[in-house]
Amino acid sequence: MPQDPFAWIDERAAVRRAAGLARGLRPRPAESPLLDLASNDYLGLARHPEVTEAAAAAARAWGAGATGSRLVTGSTELHAELEAALADFCGFESALVLSSGYAANLAVVTALTGHGTLAVSDAANHASLIDGCRLSRARTAVVPHADPDTVAKTLAGHTGGAAVVTDSVFSVDGDAAPLGRLAEVCRAHGAALLVDDAHGLGVLGPGGRGAPSAAGLAGAPDTVATVTLSKSLGSQGGAVLGPARVIDHLVNTARTFIFDTGLAPAATGAALASLRLLRREPRRAARVRAVATALHERLTAAGLDAVRPDAAVVSVRAPSPDAAVRWAAECRAAGLVVGCFRPPSVPDGVSRLRLTARADLTDGQLARAMEVVTGTAPVRG
Amino acid sequence: MPQDPFAWIDERAAVRRAAGLARGLRPRPAESPLLDLASNDYLGLARHPEVTEAAAAAARAWGAGATGSRLVTGSTELHAELEAALADFCGFESALVLSSGYAANLAVVTALTGHGTLAVSDAANHASLIDGCRLSRARTAVVPHADPDTVAKTLAGHTGGAAVVTDSVFSVDGDAAPLGRLAEVCRAHGAALLVDDAHGLGVLGPGGRGAPSAAGLAGAPDTVATVTLSKSLGSQGGAVLGPARVIDHLVNTARTFIFDTGLAPAATGAALASLRLLRREPRRAARVRAVATALHERLTAAGLDAVRPDAAVVSVRAPSPDAAVRWAAECRAAGLVVGCFRPPSVPDGVSRLRLTARADLTDGQLARAMEVVTGTAPVRG
Ligand SMILES: Cc1ncc(COP(=O)(O)O)c(C=O)c1O
Ligand SMILES: Cc1ncc(COP(=O)(O)O)c(C=O)c1O
Repeated sequence: MPQDPFAWIDERAAVRRAAGLARGLRPRPAESPLLDLASNDYLGLARHPEVTEAAAAAARAWGAGATGSRLVTGSTELHAELEAALADFCGFESALVLSSGYAANLAVVTALTGHGTLAVSDAANHASLIDGCRLSRARTAVVPHADPDTVAKTLAGHTGGAAVVTDSVFSVDGDAAPLGRLAEVCRAHGAALLVDDAHGLGVLGPGGRGAPSAAGLAGAPDTVATVTLSKSLGSQGGAVLGPARVIDHLVNTARTFIFDTGLAPAATGAALASLRLLRREPRRAARVRAVATALHERLTAAGLDAVRPDAAVVSVRAPSPDAAVRWAAECRAAGLVVGCFRPPSVPDGVSRLRLTARADLTDGQLARAMEVVTGTAPVRG
Repeated sequence: MPQDPFAWIDERAAVRRAAGLARGLRPRPAESPLLDLASNDYLGLARHPEVTEAAAAAARAWGAGATGSRLVTGSTELHAELEAALADFCGFESALVLSSGYAANLAVVTALTGHGTLAVSDAANHASLIDGCRLSRARTAVVPHADPDTVAKTLAGHTGGAAVVTDSVFSVDGDAAPLGRLAEVCRAHGAALLVDDAHGLGVLGPGGRGAPSAAGLAGAPDTVATVTLSKSLGSQGGAVLGPARVIDHLVNTARTFIFDTGLAPAATGAALASLRLLRREPRRAARVRAVATALHERLTAAGLDAVRPDAAVVSVRAPSPDAAVRWAAECRAAGLVVGCFRPPSVPDGVSRLRLTARADLTDGQLARAMEVVTGTAPVRG
């Protein structure tokens, strides 16, 4: 009998089950009567007919896949068109599309930091930025969350190249990074600023042009932003926005760009259609922010511990992982889907419900959602 | 004047240009008169109407994006259907779909190796497996290419958990790993075998069921395979195939699964349609192998230094990076697109043309392609 190389997996699973932290997939049907406050489809574009028809048309015109990596056969004129549209909309010189936001973050961090340089990373950064730092040959200094003074001190103690790495809007609590202060600190020290605007694009800035635009950093020569096409734009994929020379450097050196198949034409076409729609209907961005503010006001009025949202994500604390799971389950039983974040998906070990605002929620849906969330809230001890 | 944090990028670009290694994107139109021997669309399915219509239908029925990570709102019944179909076709207990093959490889290596364990990695492995090893907290031993004896020695010198990590078909030279021997070695030492079957699925094994199937390893309790949906299946995405407990472990711990938006419905639906087509038309797999063999025979007959293909990729050596670029450019001028691999995309520093066989190439196209490649070949010194 050969030894079982996966015996340890069963032990880990038992530990998870005992701690109430086991998770499983729950595939959803195409049409559901449930009200969704859990997705990242902030502008309600994922199922917009203009967007889904663009996906369908792109698959027909260009094929179901890109057929190769971007440097071989995987760059179509559709990719180039999306890159030009993203750069133009967000106010950067150049853009590069990758197969996911995750891949875009790995690309930027690994290709723009390296041996002898310092990466200064916010403690609440997204997993993909953290993995980028781990993959990079730079030394990484993790600094307390949203703390530009410590960033400044950390940079001051270093000679040589440096980059400050941060989410623009943090995915768990929905709070915004102090981008303006971080940019000042970076400039004082000659450091680059790398901003993951996954939750900012489509929500923040004029007409949804994103957090760098809102902070006056769009097109800055020392700022590089990443975005995902999978949240506000309702599609899939990621992109890097920055100076042309940075984009050219990524094309030549970023492993998750070079050694990965190009984004599928359908996803590319859908993102392009969403961008056009957002340009035509800029009020979608204002609406999602208003919905988030309304969610927060009502949760707080009901005595719940909710974080004031800077974008579309509203986070509400739960007393324990178990309580969070029960709360989310009761919401679902009452027809409402909410996110439930527990360890190890939360950096601070605090479990919470995560509600996301959508621009297409009606006032009636909003009222019903708040009734459910407050009505099922765990009794506070 | 603040310091320029990206000044070093211009220096690197100048070095690349001087070495003839600068690369740029060349977006292609939707319809091209060029003959393609460069893509990884091995079965000619990316533009098959059944596949593109499935992509279009999925976008309409399910939306342009998955709207969230797989554990929140990003799992649809379509994902579950594809996972069941992949597991069934390839002969594994369970399957998990991720947004790319790259993400699947990062997931498997990081989640199945860790502190105190040893990852034994073939020197010619794909970038995504290498990055997985770099991200893992395991110690990594890089072993010479396709050398099971050294793998055995390396495992013998280690106590504790271990995993052997290998491509099934190596992407640069198209040669196959000695999977049978590696599996024996793994079993003798209680190590897991992690196989990236990106270039095997759809090409090797009965009806294209892949390299693990061909080696009698499909469904083995100690073997985990990854595949991509972006090559033979003509779509985008990746998947892990393995025992159910391994898949459950990935769902609960793999960062590139948990913190990444689910695969877009269009890509999911397209891969499902390709799989159905391949089941119905198993001779596609035999045809692509026959085309590859024919390519190799004709290249060798013309005195060129081509590697005997084990799957669909045929690699031909060029005397220098410059000669490879010129050769590829002359092929293009004569109507033929071929891949051109130069440093740093090749592990051994040898530049080559990379030709890929396709099941839908006619004998006439094949003859024309070979005329062009041999007619433009650099004179040997
Ligand atoms: C802050 C942040 N960055 C990056 C990503 C990854 O983007 P994608 O899902 O497109 O890979 C996500 C979520 O998925 C995110 O929340
Ligand atoms: C051997 C191998 N593994 C993994 C990948 C990554 O797959 P994907 O492009 O779907 O991310 C590739 C190529 O892209 C590959 O050649």
